[in-house]
Amino acid sequence: MQRNGFVSLVGAGPGDAELLTVKALRLLQQADVVVYDRLVSEDILGLIPAGVGRIAVGKSPGKHCVPQHQINDILVGLARAGRRIVRLKGGDPYLFGRGGEEVLALKRHNIAFEVVPGVTAASGCGACSGIPLTHRGLSRGVHFITGHFSNDEPLDIDWARIADPESTLVIYMGLANLARISVSLIDAGLPASTPAAAVENGTTIRQRRVLSTLTGLDAAVKDAGLNAPVMIIIGAVVSLAHELDWFQKTLACADDHEFYEQGIAARH
Amino acid sequence: MQRNGFVSLVGAGPGDAELLTVKALRLLQQADVVVYDRLVSEDILGLIPAGVGRIAVGKSPGKHCVPQHQINDILVGLARAGRRIVRLKGGDPYLFGRGGEEVLALKRHNIAFEVVPGVTAASGCGACSGIPLTHRGLSRGVHFITGHFSNDEPLDIDWARIADPESTLVIYMGLANLARISVSLIDAGLPASTPAAAVENGTTIRQRRVLSTLTGLDAAVKDAGLNAPVMIIIGAVVSLAHELDWFQKTLACADDHEFYEQGIAARH
Repeated sequence: MQRNGFVSLVGAGPGDAELLTVKALRLLQQADVVVYDRLVSEDILGLIPAGVGRIAVGKSPGKHCVPQHQINDILVGLARAGRRIVRLKGGDPYLFGRGGEEVLALKRHNIAFEVVPGVTAASGCGACSGIPLTHRGLSRGVHFITGHFSNDEPLDIDWARIADPESTLVIYMGLANLARISVSLIDAGLPASTPAAAVENGTTIRQRRVLSTLTGLDAAVKDAGLNAPVMIIIGAVVSLAHELDWFQKTLACADDHEFYEQGIAARH
Repeated sequence: MQRNGFVSLVGAGPGDAELLTVKALRLLQQADVVVYDRLVSEDILGLIPAGVGRIAVGKSPGKHCVPQHQINDILVGLARAGRRIVRLKGGDPYLFGRGGEEVLALKRHNIAFEVVPGVTAASGCGACSGIPLTHRGLSRGVHFITGHFSNDEPLDIDWARIADPESTLVIYMGLANLARISVSLIDAGLPASTPAAAVENGTTIRQRRVLSTLTGLDAAVKDAGLNAPVMIIIGAVVSLAHELDWFQKTLACADDHEFYEQGIAARH
């Protein structure tokens, strides 16, 4: 009789391969096959032993990708073939990762699974760009939303609820809609001068950080030519980013970054 | 000349020692001294090599603890003595960990530091209690707040903003104020029937999970006798917790837990 397959839905963390959990690393080393998203970095893929199968099901905003139902079918098919599968997703699988949909599909096909949380991109970007997501006197809580909607849906968000000057707002996948998001937040009452940051490729050696204000961020991001993945962080805590930076200056290309950040700072 | 000290502010993750990051584990093994909070588990402390100094500065809600300014002084003192320090905090240091205050103190004393993000307790508890924090059709975002205020401050929260049926609400350290929090959310318009969960010792072998409704959770938690640390999760996503459970049944004391959860389910 064939052994039963098993799926580990695993968060790969924010980018830096050292920010994988110990459990995630162990599971990668024990897998028969790894099914991974586009947001999983090359450094992390490099930790998968030779001989382990790899299937890319990359989702990239606005580009062709494997539809969710087909990803589910791939996982079910591999599990029925008795494989030990790691389904590797960027960040944490239960925060904007559609992980719940995948394990529901597994459950409904009677396939055993586990879920391994990961460091979410917000935590990674906060730590490596000098921005505590909560901070006494500046922010009592934090709100995570996504700025990306598939199929060109409108941004159906209750802006009045989100526009809270006493809380930090973190926007995943917000780059494409940043101009509309900023205007909507200002219209809803968040001051245009609220400190705001965009972090590209957070936690990796390719990290770039743009610091501005809510009203200035979109132009600053366009000037800098940031590309996805970008995390947006808005709120008073961003005012600490210069003082608490430790990461940008340690990057290999320190000179470029230093110059670049000065350029942004001088304009706002 | 004495070498300069260095502080790594490190998130220890949600409890399970395997949910440390690879970097956190490496830093623990290279440290001269580890300064840790009460929320860091014995399993994790067990990973610190013999001979490495340990200083407990445990914060426990409502109990005597080392004041924040004194923790800052300890870190500054050790760094000036040239030590390589790991400042280990439960979860992620920049999410309700007061990590920002500690690195500001270091920065102002010219002490070099880095910040290593961790798996936040919300991600850990979601993964191990069958609750995706976001899920298509159930939740478009997630809001993290703290239910604990020092010095018996009132819960100065804008409940109308928080009481969002389309979003998941996660409350860190909310056990002591759970009754007031539930009533406030219902008064602000969140339906009393909203699914709600409490997770004690999330991700560890001692995890216990109570599933109820917003109006029933406080009584259910008291019946079960949950003690801190407890994470509260409120929102439609909690309705998936039974179907997506994989963790409770793998726990060593599976029989007790099964009986216990049935007891709760039968009453609500």
